[in-house]
Amino acid sequence: MNFIIQNVLIPVESGYTTVDVQVVDGKIAAIAPQIDAIAPIIDGKNKLLLPGFFNAHTHSSEMWQRGIMSVLPLELWLAELYDFAPLDPEQVYLSALGTAVETLLSGGTSVVDHLVLIPGLELETIATAVRAYREVGIRAFIAPLIQDESITAGIPSGESAQIHEPYFRSTAATLEIIEEAVRQFHRPEEGVNILVAPTGIQLCSDALFTGCIELSNRYNLCRHSHLLETKAQEKLALEKYGCTAVEHLWHIGFLGDRTSLAHCVWLTDADIAILAQTQSTVVHNPLSNLRLGSGIAPILKYLQAGVNVTFGCDGASSNDSQDLLEAIKIGSILHNVTDLDYQHWITPRQSVEMASLGGATGLNLADKLGSLTVGKQADLVLYDLTNLSLLPRTDPIGLLVLGRPTNVVDHVWVNGKQIVADGNVTTINVDNLRQELFNRSQWETSRKSQTAAQLELHYRTVMGL
Amino acid sequence: MNFIIQNVLIPVESGYTTVDVQVVDGKIAAIAPQIDAIAPIIDGKNKLLLPGFFNAHTHSSEMWQRGIMSVLPLELWLAELYDFAPLDPEQVYLSALGTAVETLLSGGTSVVDHLVLIPGLELETIATAVRAYREVGIRAFIAPLIQDESITAGIPSGESAQIHEPYFRSTAATLEIIEEAVRQFHRPEEGVNILVAPTGIQLCSDALFTGCIELSNRYNLCRHSHLLETKAQEKLALEKYGCTAVEHLWHIGFLGDRTSLAHCVWLTDADIAILAQTQSTVVHNPLSNLRLGSGIAPILKYLQAGVNVTFGCDGASSNDSQDLLEAIKIGSILHNVTDLDYQHWITPRQSVEMASLGGATGLNLADKLGSLTVGKQADLVLYDLTNLSLLPRTDPIGLLVLGRPTNVVDHVWVNGKQIVADGNVTTINVDNLRQELFNRSQWETSRKSQTAAQLELHYRTVMGL
Repeated sequence: MNFIIQNVLIPVESGYTTVDVQVVDGKIAAIAPQIDAIAPIIDGKNKLLLPGFFNAHTHSSEMWQRGIMSVLPLELWLAELYDFAPLDPEQVYLSALGTAVETLLSGGTSVVDHLVLIPGLELETIATAVRAYREVGIRAFIAPLIQDESITAGIPSGESAQIHEPYFRSTAATLEIIEEAVRQFHRPEEGVNILVAPTGIQLCSDALFTGCIELSNRYNLCRHSHLLETKAQEKLALEKYGCTAVEHLWHIGFLGDRTSLAHCVWLTDADIAILAQTQSTVVHNPLSNLRLGSGIAPILKYLQAGVNVTFGCDGASSNDSQDLLEAIKIGSILHNVTDLDYQHWITPRQSVEMASLGGATGLNLADKLGSLTVGKQADLVLYDLTNLSLLPRTDPIGLLVLGRPTNVVDHVWVNGKQIVADGNVTTINVDNLRQELFNRSQWETSRKSQTAAQLELHYRTVMGL
Repeated sequence: MNFIIQNVLIPVESGYTTVDVQVVDGKIAAIAPQIDAIAPIIDGKNKLLLPGFFNAHTHSSEMWQRGIMSVLPLELWLAELYDFAPLDPEQVYLSALGTAVETLLSGGTSVVDHLVLIPGLELETIATAVRAYREVGIRAFIAPLIQDESITAGIPSGESAQIHEPYFRSTAATLEIIEEAVRQFHRPEEGVNILVAPTGIQLCSDALFTGCIELSNRYNLCRHSHLLETKAQEKLALEKYGCTAVEHLWHIGFLGDRTSLAHCVWLTDADIAILAQTQSTVVHNPLSNLRLGSGIAPILKYLQAGVNVTFGCDGASSNDSQDLLEAIKIGSILHNVTDLDYQHWITPRQSVEMASLGGATGLNLADKLGSLTVGKQADLVLYDLTNLSLLPRTDPIGLLVLGRPTNVVDHVWVNGKQIVADGNVTTINVDNLRQELFNRSQWETSRKSQTAAQLELHYRTVMGL
C-alpha cells in the first residue's frame, strides 16, 4: 500500500525536523518538508517516526513459563525450563503471537526467534511459528534452536569425570531438519527468514557448527548462537577446547558479518578484537543477564572496539516480558556503572541506532532496513508524543529510551503494510489471544524441577559455591 | 467508605488463596473465605490484591526535565538540573499530580517527595505539593529538600583549595521554614506528613542536621536524606569528617528507626552494621543509580545484615519515569550479578514485602500500613490478572515483579477511599493534566548547562578522569 505520513517529527543530526514521509510499494519513497498527497494520509502531528527496532534474540515459547521460573542461574534454570517446556504446537502458535504483539507494541518490527523445537515435531514447530508471524505481519527471523549434546554437557566437569547421555537425535538428522526448513519456509522477500542457530558451544559439537556453516553458505543464511552467557560457559570452553569459545568459533569459521551472538558476557579483550575483526554482531540481553545473574556484558568495550551491538529481550522466562523498550533502556543505562567516565556512556540516540540499524546490520540487511532512508523498506513505528509517559515535552528520544513509555506505539508498518493502528494490532484478534492464553494456563505457586535438583550439587561444586 | 472485595486472590505463606476482604472506616476489618456482603461489592475475580507500595524516594518537580538531562554523573547532572529547575508553583503542582498518577498506576499508594523548594517561595512550594497530593488522594510524605551549603561544596576538593559561595539562606531561616511547614501541613491522620530532610552530608552542615534532629524529636517526624550516592560523596565525607558519612551521621544522632536513607551505594561493612544496629532504612533507587552511573547499592548485603530496604523511583530526571513496578523489578534482579550464589538472590515475594512493609517500616508505620492485615489502614491495590502482560497464568507475583506489567492496576484505595477505578484515576482529570504538561513545554534537543561546564574540569581532576 502507498501512503504519506504528514507533519511528523523525525530525528536529524542537529535535533528534530518536521517532514512528510511517503511510502510506495513497501519502500520509503521520499522524505521532505512537503510532499504532494497522492495517497492515503496519516496525520503525524505530535508524533515521532522511527525505524522499527529489532528484538534480536528471543525464544517465543518461553512465554508459557514467564513469572514462574525459580530464581536460578542459567544452567539450573535451563533444567527447570526444559522439565516444563510446552509440547503442543498450538502453544507454540499462541506464544509466537504473544511475542510478536509485545514486540510490536514496544517499537519492534522484527523478531529473531531462537525457536525451541518440540522433539519429534521439529518441522511442525517451525511451520507453526512461521504461520503465527505471517498472520501478525511482523518481520520474522526464525532461528530453530539446535544442539547435539544433552543438557548435562553444558556444565563444566571440573575435576570430576562426567558421562553424558547421548543426545536423542543425530547431528545429521538435525541438519536435515534445518535444510528442509530452509526449503519450505525461507522466503526473505516475504518477510520470513530461516537462520542456522546452534544453541552454543556448551551443547553443540564441531560437526554441528560446521554443518550449519555449510548450510549458511549454500543458502545464504544468517547465523545465530548463544555465546559465553555465563561464567560456567567460560570454564566449559576452556575445558572443551583449551582456548576461549570465541577463538574456537573463529577457528572453525562460524564468525562473520552475518553472525549474531546473544549475550557475550564473558569475553576477553582478545575475544573482543576477534568479534570486531570478523564484523560479528553482539545481541545484548540485559534483563535476562540480570535475572539469571549471568553478569554485565562489556557493551561499552564492544562499542569502543567497533563491534556492532543490538538488543534482545531474550525469552520471556528469563525477562519476563517481551517489552523491547525496557530492554533498550536497561541495556543502555546499565553500563554507566561499569565505567566512571561518562564520556563513554551510551546516549539515547546511540541506543536508537543500536536497536534499529544495529539489528539490521546483524542480519546482513543494513542496506534494506534499520533507518529512515529513501529506498529502504518501510518498517516504521509512529509514537504518540502526547501520551502522559512522554510528557512534558522535552527530548522525544530521551523520553522514549530513558523513560518508561506506556501505550505510546500508535501505528506500525512492516514492509509498508500497516499492522498496528491507533495502538491496536489490526492483523489478529488480541482479545482472543488473551482468552486462549488464559484458558490454557492456571495460577501456580511452586513447581519442582527434578533435573535442576539432580544437577544442583555438581553445579555448586564446580562453581565453588 | 465501607466495602467488600469478593473472591480475590491474595498471597499466603504456601501460595495464594481466594478470600473476601472487608473494609470498614478506612481499615481492613476482615479477611475470610466468605463474608456477608453488607456493603458495596467489588468483584475480585481473576484479580490479585496487594498492599499498596511505597515510592519511598522521589523529587516530583524533576518531571519537568525528564528525557532531556545529559548523560552525566550526579555531581554534574545536578548542576544541569538546577540551571533549569522550574520556578513556578503551578509547575510544582502539575508535576506532583503527575508523580502521584504514575505512582498509583504502578502499584504505589504512598509517595515520599523529597521536594525541591523554589527559592523565596519555600512554604508556597510545600503548600502546592500538599494541595496536589490531597487532590489525588495518594498518601503523601513530603520531605522538603534543604541544604545550607552551595552546590560546589558537594564535590570533593582533592588536593586543591576550594572556596565556596555561602548558601543564600541561613541555617536558622531554613529550619524555621520547616517548623512552619510542620505546623501548617503535618496531618498524619489525613494522609499528609512532613519529614525533616536535609539533602545529605555533601551540602549540609552539622548545624542543619542537628536542627533537623531536634525538630524530628519535638514533632515526632520521620527523617530522610540522601546517603553516599556516589563515589565522589564517599571521598567528600572522608575529607569533611575524617570518617565515613555513616559514622558521622551516627555520631550526631541522625540515624534511627524512623530514618530513611536514599541510595546507600558506597557503604563499608562497618557502615552496614551501623545501619542495622540503628534500624535505619535504605531506599534503593536502582534506575537512578544506573542512569547516573552511581553504582550498584549492595542490597544483598543489607538484607543479610538485617537492614530494612525498600524502593524508590527517585526523581524523574534521573530515571526518567515514576513507574514503581519498574524500579522494583530492576532493584530486585540487578543484584544477581553481584553475588554468584543464587541462594542469596531476592525472590519476587521478598520484593513485594520490601516495597510494601519495607516502605511502611522506613516511615515508622509498620503497625498501620504495608500488609494485608486486619486492623491496618486500607491502602490497597487490585491488579487485573487477565491483562496480556500478566498472561499466561503462572505465579501472579512472579509476573508482576519480574514481568513488564502494563495497564494492570485496576482499583486503588488509600485509607479505604477509592482513587483509581477500572484503571483510571477518579479524583483528578488526567486528560487535563496531560494537556497542561503539553502546553507548558516544548520539544527540545539540547541545552547547555553553564554550571556543569564550569564544574567539569575540577570534577574530572578530582575523580581521576
